[in-house]
Amino acid sequence: MHTFAELSQQFDLHFKNRQFPQQPEHLYDAAQYILDLGGKRVRPVSVLLAQEMFSELKTDALHAATAIELFHNFSLIHDDIMDKAPLRRGKDTVHSLYGESTALLAGDVMLVRAYEQFSKMDTAYRNEAFDLFNQTAREVCEGQQMDMDFENQSDVVMNQYVHMITLKTSVLLAACMKMGALIGGASPACQDHLYAFGKNLGIAFQIQDDYLDAFGDPEKFGKQVGGDIQSNKKTFLLIHALQNTDQATRNELEKLLKSSDSGKVDAVLSIFKSCGVDAWAESEKSAYTALALEHLEQVKAADHAKIHMRHLVQYLMNRES
Amino acid sequence: MHTFAELSQQFDLHFKNRQFPQQPEHLYDAAQYILDLGGKRVRPVSVLLAQEMFSELKTDALHAATAIELFHNFSLIHDDIMDKAPLRRGKDTVHSLYGESTALLAGDVMLVRAYEQFSKMDTAYRNEAFDLFNQTAREVCEGQQMDMDFENQSDVVMNQYVHMITLKTSVLLAACMKMGALIGGASPACQDHLYAFGKNLGIAFQIQDDYLDAFGDPEKFGKQVGGDIQSNKKTFLLIHALQNTDQATRNELEKLLKSSDSGKVDAVLSIFKSCGVDAWAESEKSAYTALALEHLEQVKAADHAKIHMRHLVQYLMNRES
Repeated sequence: MHTFAELSQQFDLHFKNRQFPQQPEHLYDAAQYILDLGGKRVRPVSVLLAQEMFSELKTDALHAATAIELFHNFSLIHDDIMDKAPLRRGKDTVHSLYGESTALLAGDVMLVRAYEQFSKMDTAYRNEAFDLFNQTAREVCEGQQMDMDFENQSDVVMNQYVHMITLKTSVLLAACMKMGALIGGASPACQDHLYAFGKNLGIAFQIQDDYLDAFGDPEKFGKQVGGDIQSNKKTFLLIHALQNTDQATRNELEKLLKSSDSGKVDAVLSIFKSCGVDAWAESEKSAYTALALEHLEQVKAADHAKIHMRHLVQYLMNRES
Repeated sequence: MHTFAELSQQFDLHFKNRQFPQQPEHLYDAAQYILDLGGKRVRPVSVLLAQEMFSELKTDALHAATAIELFHNFSLIHDDIMDKAPLRRGKDTVHSLYGESTALLAGDVMLVRAYEQFSKMDTAYRNEAFDLFNQTAREVCEGQQMDMDFENQSDVVMNQYVHMITLKTSVLLAACMKMGALIGGASPACQDHLYAFGKNLGIAFQIQDDYLDAFGDPEKFGKQVGGDIQSNKKTFLLIHALQNTDQATRNELEKLLKSSDSGKVDAVLSIFKSCGVDAWAESEKSAYTALALEHLEQVKAADHAKIHMRHLVQYLMNRES
């Protein structure tokens, strides 16, 4: 069994070669560009970690991991177009560099390329992996649409928000875990526990994301703290604050959201603190993490096989950027 | 065996139900909207026609036909975004009605839905059908990119243009024919002949499209004649004219292309006629059609099994709109 860092290296070795044909150059350079921006590769490495809980590392897990990473990057390209985002990881987004039309197409062809990975897999589990991938891809699109719908909706409540985030981001991590387990030869029950593990871990991960954006250490965070507040993004923190404060503070918060004053971020943060949003976020994050770990506990695998998965949990939950 | 009209009815019966879940409403209404705009359904019905050449109509052919029609509509939604087209079939495009972001996502989820059809197919040919679909999907994206690249390129020659059109439009019709044959139980050689039949028919179809846009009967065409000329679209006709005229006429043509005079369409048409572009297009269309029919001839199937396919050829090539 390998650590996250070791599997990350294995994945990079597999993934670093150009994933596309040479021609048409413009299309495939645009697609390759975002892959070359790097990232933590948490999702594909999770496939490998989950697979290794049950058997020696298989090439098919690398194919599945590749499919997931290509899918993730497809969604990033299209999300950046929708958000009109100029930067990703501090670099130009695909559409700012190559134009919107080529970026749109590069996303499309990236999704097709993700599907192509399934042709390489053993037929013993190919169909199940394919169905899981389809379901997940559909749900991610649904989550993205709900997120856009929420932008124009002032009365979003917490359970709707959790449902949206689950679809938009958590089901993909859940699918990574389950796909690894499936390829590794785990029982259906263990696959389901790993799915639930990934899903809850994903929600905890998103709460941590939202928390860092508001309360992170500016020295370590890497991005400007308060970005979500500045752009009026609905987050766990904001939904909680709106639902758990008196009418006067709620009115003030809603007024601040509509403004673009220079003091906006500080004012919202001060309301967040007065509602105890920071402590609440910490406790929610812990609750989802604990739920994730309970499901990991239920997985029938030797305890030493779970150790690297627990390290992943610690790594994701204690990160400061 | 059934006629095109009968199979078209069968397909509609299968396809008329909503193809998507109810929620999120905005996303799936946008996706369903374009399907409800209708169309001739040439591609899905071709799958059924090809399948019936070899065996009784199978449900799997309906699944394959659905995948193809969903894919085709995915590409229409995204193409319309790229072209900033306000209308399709005389109605609002998806993005003009639902906004660009929802249209983009509706296209994405339509593509995922297309892939989901493969889960329903018999495993005897599922993987081959899936590989063919992936290859085709990739090529269609490549063709669309080449088409965009050509917009900024003044020296596109005929064989490059034919290659682009083949990828952008013909391989999909080719894949329809081959997928039908595959599901019907045809030999690999017959599948390949039907692929070549569809590919050449697709090119002939496109030449007919370009011809009608320039020389069609305004009473019957349904759209404004000269639309391609007005929007400076590269077509078979334009590429041929640029390549087969003297330098002075070429200069005049290039000057006209850059202008937006009210007399532009008439002036370009008159140059087209002086170069004999209309007769050339008729003869090219006939040549590709003949090539298609030669491949159909090579298919090992009873002659009466080919009759509806020949009717399709006549229908596509003699249409006036």
